Amino acid sequence: MASFSDRLRETIRRKDSLLCVGLDVDPARVPEPLKGRDDWVYRFNLGIMEATADLVCAYKPNLAFYEALGASGMEGLRKTLAAVPEGVLVIGDGKRGDVGHTARAYARSLFDDLGFDAATVNPYLGGDSVEPFLEYADRGVILLCKTSNPGSGDFQDLRCSTPWGEIPLYQAVALRAREWNSRGNLGLVVGATYPEELRAVRALAPEMPFLIPGVGAQAGDLEKTIAYGTDDAGEMAVVNSSRQVIHASLGKDWQEAARAAALALRDGINGHRRAKTGGL
Amino acid sequence: MASFSDRLRETIRRKDSLLCVGLDVDPARVPEPLKGRDDWVYRFNLGIMEATADLVCAYKPNLAFYEALGASGMEGLRKTLAAVPEGVLVIGDGKRGDVGHTARAYARSLFDDLGFDAATVNPYLGGDSVEPFLEYADRGVILLCKTSNPGSGDFQDLRCSTPWGEIPLYQAVALRAREWNSRGNLGLVVGATYPEELRAVRALAPEMPFLIPGVGAQAGDLEKTIAYGTDDAGEMAVVNSSRQVIHASLGKDWQEAARAAALALRDGINGHRRAKTGGL
Repeated sequence: MASFSDRLRETIRRKDSLLCVGLDVDPARVPEPLKGRDDWVYRFNLGIMEATADLVCAYKPNLAFYEALGASGMEGLRKTLAAVPEGVLVIGDGKRGDVGHTARAYARSLFDDLGFDAATVNPYLGGDSVEPFLEYADRGVILLCKTSNPGSGDFQDLRCSTPWGEIPLYQAVALRAREWNSRGNLGLVVGATYPEELRAVRALAPEMPFLIPGVGAQAGDLEKTIAYGTDDAGEMAVVNSSRQVIHASLGKDWQEAARAAALALRDGINGHRRAKTGGL
Repeated sequence: MASFSDRLRETIRRKDSLLCVGLDVDPARVPEPLKGRDDWVYRFNLGIMEATADLVCAYKPNLAFYEALGASGMEGLRKTLAAVPEGVLVIGDGKRGDVGHTARAYARSLFDDLGFDAATVNPYLGGDSVEPFLEYADRGVILLCKTSNPGSGDFQDLRCSTPWGEIPLYQAVALRAREWNSRGNLGLVVGATYPEELRAVRALAPEMPFLIPGVGAQAGDLEKTIAYGTDDAGEMAVVNSSRQVIHASLGKDWQEAARAAALALRDGINGHRRAKTGGL
């Protein structure tokens, strides 16, 4: 089976899109036509996917929002996953991380049971906590590197003594990730809210897939995100937007509004890709 | 309501036990009498709790093992949580960590929906990812500091430049945790497999609750664990054992064997506590 990197590149080229829509359901933001429905989680995601499937390379449900809804949320997630359109990748955003024996159980949950194409993983526990995910050679493992939130500096920016010199922790994570990437299925999460850090990580890992949250609601700069975050071909970056797309409207026009927001974002991204690579 | 630290100290004194049993269900290790039962997850946990409730201060289900079983695993966890005996704390071991908005959803899932008394949290994303958990002032938030696995050294041991000087990352986590602990509900995970690191963290955080995995199957030294990991009163440490207790036997005597293992461990721990504090 093709490696995750190959599948991602193929998907990005076929769809001509780096856009990933985050399916982060919120019971306080249910579109008017779905209010009061028991199956609103599934109906909401289905409606967003119908409206945006041709515009995206990936969808990314963050597990927190489904777990917060209890058993019905997880049931909605399962139905959503069964309805994802052919040819779009699905990233399970759970940021799991545990000792090897336990990490194996998380990998089973995310890859075997839920069937995600890729999953986000927290690096804090080190290599043996990541390896059970990497053993799924056809799935992507996207390691937190420099996250988009204000508190990411607390530890990720600490300068550390490493075999590569005195560098911030997030760069040590990127360099370790390169060593661990023998199967070509490792990627990195780098927030759009830190463009200089994004540039630094891309320089350290020129070919690795990046998952880039923080455009939209968290307000990262889109031009720099694309200029710094993509590879030389303007590819290998998955740019996530959640709220800006899925909550573009809560009225009857919620699907149209989501589509318009996704279209504008995809085209904005593609404009910056062409500018970077000199394409038309 | 009492802070988590106060509740933990009260529980430890009342039960005269630091023992926590990890309820890590494994479909490959189902006791003979429960094999083939649809509700084996719940029956297994119920049997372990019946056999050990008077010997422990806490139970700790690791969410990975329930998620790996799909919807039926989570259903078994819910039934288990409803059956936990009065006066025993329950720690949800999920090692979650995400940006503030999303961390809030995880906190809702663990504290409001599942109702855990405490939860383990990964520090990599920094203070704003921990704060939504800390806002539940009556619940415990147990931050990964130095984990018990071999790979914990990859990042946790890196020497970092911090306001407190050049120290390993795990010590920076402990010192930040002290700053964040304004509500008295923060604790630290420190593995028994690293006794010197355990001693160092206890010196930095003399009064904080520690969750100490890695005795039993991961083979940490029990005497050092207690000498180094407890506070001056020989308290404020929760010593977890999972497989050594719950899989002590897979035969008809599985409950008796679990009880015998838990009893031996509790008494071993208490012997070392008395030796440390000079009590009888």
